[in-house]
Amino acid sequence: MTRRGPVLVIDIGGTKLAAGVAESGGRLITWSQVPTPRDVDAEQLWRTLESLLLQVLTVAKVDDFNSLSGIGCGCGGPMEWPAGLVSPLNIPAWRDFPLRDRLAARFVGGRSDVPVRVHNDAVCMAAGEHWRGAGRGRRNVLGMVVSTGVGGGLILDNHLINGMSGNAGHIGHVVVDPDDGPLCVCGAIGCLEAIARGPGLTAWAQNEGWRPGQPGVTAKDLAGDAAQGHGIARAAMRRAGRALGIAIASATNLCDLEVVSIGGGLSQAGALIFDPLQESLAAHTMLDFAREVRVVPAALGQHAGLVGAAAMIVVGHKYWTGD
Amino acid sequence: MTRRGPVLVIDIGGTKLAAGVAESGGRLITWSQVPTPRDVDAEQLWRTLESLLLQVLTVAKVDDFNSLSGIGCGCGGPMEWPAGLVSPLNIPAWRDFPLRDRLAARFVGGRSDVPVRVHNDAVCMAAGEHWRGAGRGRRNVLGMVVSTGVGGGLILDNHLINGMSGNAGHIGHVVVDPDDGPLCVCGAIGCLEAIARGPGLTAWAQNEGWRPGQPGVTAKDLAGDAAQGHGIARAAMRRAGRALGIAIASATNLCDLEVVSIGGGLSQAGALIFDPLQESLAAHTMLDFAREVRVVPAALGQHAGLVGAAAMIVVGHKYWTGD
Repeated sequence: MTRRGPVLVIDIGGTKLAAGVAESGGRLITWSQVPTPRDVDAEQLWRTLESLLLQVLTVAKVDDFNSLSGIGCGCGGPMEWPAGLVSPLNIPAWRDFPLRDRLAARFVGGRSDVPVRVHNDAVCMAAGEHWRGAGRGRRNVLGMVVSTGVGGGLILDNHLINGMSGNAGHIGHVVVDPDDGPLCVCGAIGCLEAIARGPGLTAWAQNEGWRPGQPGVTAKDLAGDAAQGHGIARAAMRRAGRALGIAIASATNLCDLEVVSIGGGLSQAGALIFDPLQESLAAHTMLDFAREVRVVPAALGQHAGLVGAAAMIVVGHKYWTGD
Repeated sequence: MTRRGPVLVIDIGGTKLAAGVAESGGRLITWSQVPTPRDVDAEQLWRTLESLLLQVLTVAKVDDFNSLSGIGCGCGGPMEWPAGLVSPLNIPAWRDFPLRDRLAARFVGGRSDVPVRVHNDAVCMAAGEHWRGAGRGRRNVLGMVVSTGVGGGLILDNHLINGMSGNAGHIGHVVVDPDDGPLCVCGAIGCLEAIARGPGLTAWAQNEGWRPGQPGVTAKDLAGDAAQGHGIARAAMRRAGRALGIAIASATNLCDLEVVSIGGGLSQAGALIFDPLQESLAAHTMLDFAREVRVVPAALGQHAGLVGAAAMIVVGHKYWTGD
């Protein structure tokens, strides 16, 4: 069944909170975003989100919440799925936060016929890219978000893959440097995320002598300096691109992927990331079938997660098997 | 539809050719195996296989090939799937060998109603373990064969995953040591297979001083010496176990696996392999969901591939989507 009526869509990451209202075809009527607040508690973060949602609903002229056909939400993992108890690695304020229940209680009241669906943010991004983006018409797609964290979602044999606990797609924790890699937020050594996440990049570059000791620097600053030719900044981007290429190669060899679509802030760095990525990918995909994979920036750009959140409601029969 | 009648089942690997006749419930009526001949051409290898198949059919008293309900065959990858043109990395005699057509022509004549299905040997192993082995009743299973090569098959969300070209499951080419790893048969650096395949193990150990220069040594010899306490042999097993643990951790994080079932000769080395495997697996699966994975020896032992080949026919609606 394809649902009609506007969908409230949400994308919660370590860097930004984004929300919008989508039509049943996936087009965003309006959207807005705010930086993810830091050093707040669970309720303060909830109130920031609530304000953002009220704002986009107002702009989209959804005065009667009863007209919503559902709420689709992507949130950083891990989470208890499909229950929607979220514990985003990069958002310490929420640990086992009952996001699904809170959204349902606040915006659809007691109506059990209006679906509220929370999935991993990168799973939503992958669904969005498969439904309306770079993976359209393809059957084997990895969608990735490279930002404060590194996440992913898998569509294999045209099915969105959930795995045992709804956590399939965590490519950020594919191991790329088990011997000498940095410590990951998860506690393991050498995960892709430890190397390629924005704060991992800047920490490495600062340690090497880029803007030493300067507080508050971001991966965007680093990418800017790299584009200007700064040696250490360029090396940092190469290191991240190479790690991404290795992890994508492992995923391609394991899953026989057709398209890998990369979103998130770092994907906007263009050739600085994609050139070393393609180089290490080629070096580690030597079997004929694996060479066919195409790695591209997300066609939906920063909206992929919101469009995928809409897909969880509008075409839930394709992307949602949670309940 | 569940098919009745005996199934001719085949498992073709770099170490051995195995064949049997299975009942519709998966039980093997008879089975037999021979070492995979080396230094032969494509037709000589085919004739060796043909003799083996005639032998098991005779022992199982299948005098009339028309009584066969189908032929299920696992073969080392890669291959053109579902066409069944096979090019097993570790069997140089066959490159684009039309195994499916040859089996159909020889054993079921022109009968198009009798299915002949060729899939990756490790995919068959995974199907066997999911149908009747360690993965029974589980929805997210990786089946692995660790032998002359290192292969795998994926069942995710209760679907056997084929990927873009039927090659999903190639865990042997998940990258575990991109900086200092050995060169893999595929041409890449640091694949799991390059480290953990039998010949990779013995080559490393001989280079370190185990039975130096002795020709024809096998991973079985190495495991035997390791069991006797030989230092280099034990180190070789630890190195392979560690590499397996890293690759399985990457696969678990990416696919949210529940059970990993390991077959093939090396899996018989017990704690010598499984202890370092579990240790490195634990070190690289730090997210809560990933810690739940269980890694076990194949419950069907060396018959997992043959039972899975039967599954491709008997319960093809679950495991075969090729045509």
